Amino acid sequence: MTPDHRREQLLELGVRLLSTRPLEELSIETLAEEAGISRGLLYHYFGNKQDFHTAVVQRAADDLFARTAPTGDGGPLEQLAGSLARYVDYVTENYQGYVSLIRGAAGGHEELRRIYEDSRAALTDRLFETPVAREAAQFGLTDTPAVRLLVRGWSSFVEEVVVEWVRDPRGLTRDELLTLLSGSLPGILQAG
Amino acid sequence: MTPDHRREQLLELGVRLLSTRPLEELSIETLAEEAGISRGLLYHYFGNKQDFHTAVVQRAADDLFARTAPTGDGGPLEQLAGSLARYVDYVTENYQGYVSLIRGAAGGHEELRRIYEDSRAALTDRLFETPVAREAAQFGLTDTPAVRLLVRGWSSFVEEVVVEWVRDPRGLTRDELLTLLSGSLPGILQAG
Repeated sequence: MTPDHRREQLLELGVRLLSTRPLEELSIETLAEEAGISRGLLYHYFGNKQDFHTAVVQRAADDLFARTAPTGDGGPLEQLAGSLARYVDYVTENYQGYVSLIRGAAGGHEELRRIYEDSRAALTDRLFETPVAREAAQFGLTDTPAVRLLVRGWSSFVEEVVVEWVRDPRGLTRDELLTLLSGSLPGILQAG
Repeated sequence: MTPDHRREQLLELGVRLLSTRPLEELSIETLAEEAGISRGLLYHYFGNKQDFHTAVVQRAADDLFARTAPTGDGGPLEQLAGSLARYVDYVTENYQGYVSLIRGAAGGHEELRRIYEDSRAALTDRLFETPVAREAAQFGLTDTPAVRLLVRGWSSFVEEVVVEWVRDPRGLTRDELLTLLSGSLPGILQAG
């Protein structure tokens, strides 16, 4: 196995470990134990704990981005609903780590904040860049600074609702949640 | 002046100082200098820096709550618009301190987090408790766990949009912003 390939494997293991624990509990020691290799070798791959965390979080953000990519099937609202469904499943499967990232990013950890902001910008920019974006203008998704501001706010709405729903579903089924989430973007954009 | 009255005055000064700087730059030294009294006397009133910060932040949250109270004039949407206008003005006037509170609360500072969560719950609970709440059901504001979840998400939307707008208005006037914000709650609630 090449060093790059080995590093990839370790990153994937790090992302998997992060899914069930907060970032501050993800140590190089834990990874070494799970991977069955020495701490020294891990320091060789990742430098220090901070670099290790940054690499794992960046990989987790890339996974989220890839996983929620529009499939290209259906109209803009169907594609949005599909991406949201995969976002909900991602948060469900990675709850502990995901919440710790949001908090870490908000709490002034600069490198986490950069990854979080870049990731959120990528997820929302995509709404304006898909082949169906022109069609999406029918529900108010035109590319103006004001609409981009509202979409940014909408992504905070989605994040808050989904994280809270995973913690306590309040009797809402996944399908009911998805209906509410998909409708909320046109609802917000058409309100003005 | 009684000690209670004196403490009140110092708290108000702390809140005023917090409006133009992040919480971590609000020190007992700064307050002592501005108030023209000794650090020793301030420690007498506030115990330690942590207790001082908690007291100032709690007071700032109480101010926000009082300032955004519905006036009782007009229908539910007019009252909502009035409260939102006063929220926007509050964030505009207290930008530095307000942003530092949101970040501190999200970043795992437990006492700040409690004040922030209580404050947000109080602000949104009020939507279900005003005399016009029954009338508000016409735009979907019924008191169910699902609607409460959406309203919680909506408050994240409003916070994000307003904080970003104050930082960079993107050509949106205050009135345009208020139209978008007031319409967004019915827009979200009627989407499902």
